[in-house]
Amino acid sequence: MARALYKGLLLIADGLGDRPVPEMGRKTPLEYAATPTLDRLAREGECGLMDPIAPGIRAGSDTAHLAILGYDPYRVYQGRGPFEALGIGMEVRGGDVALRCNFSTVDAEMRVIDRRAGRITDGTRELAEAVNGVVIDGVQCFFKESVAHRGALVLRGEGLSHRITDVDPHAEGKPIHAARPLDSDDPAAVRTAQVVNAFVRLSYERLNDHPVNRARREQGLPPANIILPRGAGVAPHLEPFPQKHGMTAVAVVETGLIRGIARFVGMDTLDAPGATGGVDTDYASIADTLARALQRYDFVLCNVKSPDLCGHDRNPHLKAQAIEQIDGLVARLLEGYREPFYLVFTGDHSTPCSVGDHSGDPVPVLLHGPDLRGDEVLRFHEYACARGALGRLRGGDLVPILTQLMGVQEKFGA
Amino acid sequence: MARALYKGLLLIADGLGDRPVPEMGRKTPLEYAATPTLDRLAREGECGLMDPIAPGIRAGSDTAHLAILGYDPYRVYQGRGPFEALGIGMEVRGGDVALRCNFSTVDAEMRVIDRRAGRITDGTRELAEAVNGVVIDGVQCFFKESVAHRGALVLRGEGLSHRITDVDPHAEGKPIHAARPLDSDDPAAVRTAQVVNAFVRLSYERLNDHPVNRARREQGLPPANIILPRGAGVAPHLEPFPQKHGMTAVAVVETGLIRGIARFVGMDTLDAPGATGGVDTDYASIADTLARALQRYDFVLCNVKSPDLCGHDRNPHLKAQAIEQIDGLVARLLEGYREPFYLVFTGDHSTPCSVGDHSGDPVPVLLHGPDLRGDEVLRFHEYACARGALGRLRGGDLVPILTQLMGVQEKFGA
Repeated sequence: MARALYKGLLLIADGLGDRPVPEMGRKTPLEYAATPTLDRLAREGECGLMDPIAPGIRAGSDTAHLAILGYDPYRVYQGRGPFEALGIGMEVRGGDVALRCNFSTVDAEMRVIDRRAGRITDGTRELAEAVNGVVIDGVQCFFKESVAHRGALVLRGEGLSHRITDVDPHAEGKPIHAARPLDSDDPAAVRTAQVVNAFVRLSYERLNDHPVNRARREQGLPPANIILPRGAGVAPHLEPFPQKHGMTAVAVVETGLIRGIARFVGMDTLDAPGATGGVDTDYASIADTLARALQRYDFVLCNVKSPDLCGHDRNPHLKAQAIEQIDGLVARLLEGYREPFYLVFTGDHSTPCSVGDHSGDPVPVLLHGPDLRGDEVLRFHEYACARGALGRLRGGDLVPILTQLMGVQEKFGA
Repeated sequence: MARALYKGLLLIADGLGDRPVPEMGRKTPLEYAATPTLDRLAREGECGLMDPIAPGIRAGSDTAHLAILGYDPYRVYQGRGPFEALGIGMEVRGGDVALRCNFSTVDAEMRVIDRRAGRITDGTRELAEAVNGVVIDGVQCFFKESVAHRGALVLRGEGLSHRITDVDPHAEGKPIHAARPLDSDDPAAVRTAQVVNAFVRLSYERLNDHPVNRARREQGLPPANIILPRGAGVAPHLEPFPQKHGMTAVAVVETGLIRGIARFVGMDTLDAPGATGGVDTDYASIADTLARALQRYDFVLCNVKSPDLCGHDRNPHLKAQAIEQIDGLVARLLEGYREPFYLVFTGDHSTPCSVGDHSGDPVPVLLHGPDLRGDEVLRFHEYACARGALGRLRGGDLVPILTQLMGVQEKFGA
C-alpha cells in the first residue's frame, strides 16, 4: 500500500459552528474563546467556510461524516436503520438490512399496551442476549439494545431487501402489524418480511417469560415482552476508504456513532483512554492517542463531541470552554508529534446555542501544513474564515485536498 | 402543515446583474443607482455572488427560476414547449406534452406560403377558440394564442411522449411535415405523433374558412389557416414545492412565465394590482401585496421584471432607475411588514446592457434577517458582494439556506 509523503489528520470538533451570541458581545463561542494555537495555525495556514453536505442543508453527524469522508449521503443513507445500528457500535456490512426497534409491551392477542415498555432502562442487555444471534431461514439476526427501550436489528444474508413495512403500529391499543413487502413481486422483500415477522414472534416467545420480565411484573412494571422493528434500511456496498485512497486510515473515536461509521467505511478505530464523548472527556488522552495514531497510520480521523453537546444545551460559555480545551488538545498534539503533517480542523456542522440543534450554517475550516500558499486570515472563527483563501468548500472536498498534499493521490488523466 | 418560525421572502430583480458601464464611470447600473435600503440590508446581513444554474451558464428566466426553486433544470426542462405554454398562463401538469406553435398560411396542397401568417396580430384569440379543447383519440388538446402568430398546444392524456419530430418545416415553399416518432417502436411516441397530425388537419379544417380568415383574405392578408407545432416537450412530475419543504408558498407575479412556473411547482399565485411587468409597473402595489403575502404564507417568491427589460434594451440609466424603484419597494415593504423575517434579494441572471441579453455572469445576492453572522460588506452591488461571507453560491442553495433559518427544514440524519 502506498505510504504517504506526509501524514494527514482530519480533526472534527462536533457542532463547532455557531451564530452571534448576544451575551458574548455578538461574538460566536469560537470567536469568544481563547484559542491561541488554532489562531496561530490559521495565520500560518489557509482558512475557509465549509458546508458539510451543501449550503443550507442541516446535516446530522452521521450524514456529515459520510460526506466529509467522500461518500454521497443521499446515495449511502437509505433509511435510518443501518446508522442507528452503527451508532450503538454494531457491525454493519454492505448488503445488511438494519431496523430500528423498540422493546414494547403486548398482550396475549398481540395488541400493543405500551410501545416503550414503560421506558425500561434496566435489563435490556439480558433481554437482547436472549434473541441476539438467532438464524432464521439462513439469515443471521443480530440484535443489540441501545438507551432505554431502544435497540437495533441487523439482518445478514443473501437476497435481503429493506423495502418492507414497519411491524411497529406506531400507536398503542392496536395490534402489531405484520411486516409486508412494498412490492409483492419482489422475492427479496417477501423473504425479508418473513424473516422479520419470524424474529418478532421469536422475540415474544423468548422474552415474555424471561426472568427480567417476571421481575418487572412482580414490581408492577409493564414487561418488555416483544421487539417491534421499524425503519428498515439497507447498508450499501462501499469502496473501503483505505483502498479508495491508497493509504492506511484510523479513526480515534469517542462515540459509538463515529466508531460505527469509521468501521462501515473500512477504517480501523482506536479508543482514547478516558474519552467519554462528554464535556468531561480526557482531551490530553485524545491528543496523545492522536500522536500515536499519526505514528502508525497515513490518515487519521478524529471527532471530539463536546462542543455539540453545549450547543444542544444552549450553553455558549460551556461551548467556548470546550473549544478552549480542544485548542489545548491541538497544542499538546503538536508537542507530542513533531513531524510535519497536514491538519484539517473543522466541524461536522453548526450547532448554534440560539437554535439548540444542528443548523445549516457553514462551519469554519482550517488547513495547516508544509508548502501551503497561505492567506491573510489572522484568527480562527466564523467571520475571519469567511475571507480565507479556501473560499466556501463542501465536506466532500476535504479528503481530496488532504490526499493531494499528502502525496497519495493519483493524477486523474495524463 | 408545519408553520415556519420565521417567514421567508425570495425577491428576484429580473436580470439584475450587469457589467461595468463606461458612461457610468465603469460602475454597474446597480452600483450607480442610489439604493440606501439595499445597502443598509447588506451592512446588516450577509452577501455573496450567485450563479443561478452553475458558473458561466447563461440561464433563461424559466430555467433560472426552476433552479432557484430547487429543481434541476437539466432534468426538468425537457423541451421548450411546456415552458412556452406556462409562459402564456396555460395550465401544464406533470405528464403533459406541450408544443410551441405558429399560426401559418398554407395552400390547398399543404405547402407553407407564410410560416407566420403575415405576422398576424388580431383575431388569434377567436382562431384559438375554434380548436381549443378538442379531444382526439382520448387526448385533450388545449391551444392558446400568444403574441402575434405564436401559440402553444398542450396535450393531456395517458401514454404520451415528447419524442416526436416537428410539423413545422421551418421553411416556406415546402409542404408541412407529418410529425413522426423518433423511435417507431415507441407506442407512446407513435400515438402522440398521430394525435398531433390529427390536430394539425383539424386546425386547417376549422381555420381555413373561419370568419377571421375570410376577413383577412378580403383585406389581402394571408389567412392564418393552419397551426404548425414544433419543439415538443414533456412536463415532468415534480414534488410540489410546499409539500417538499413543509410550508405554504405563494408567488407574487408580474408575468405569465413566472405565474406558469409557480403554478407548475404547486405554489399559489397572487397578482399585485397595477403590476405590468414593465418599467411602468406599480412598485408600491407590489410591496403592499408582498406584505399581505407574508401575513398569510410561510414562503413568498416575487419577481420584478423591469431591470431585465432595460438590460435587453441596452439602457443602463433606465436600469439604474428601475433598481432605485425596487430599492423603494423594499423600503415600503419593511414599513408595511414589521415582523422579523428572512429576505433573500438577488437576480435570476445578469442581463448586461453591453450584451443586451442574458449573460453567464453571477448575480449579487443578499441575505437579511435575525440571528445571522453578518460580514463586512457595506454596499449591495456586484463588486462589494464578491467579498461577502456567503461566498459564491448556486441558485439551488438559496431555498435550503432560507428554510434552515426559517426553522422548517428537517435534519438530514441524526
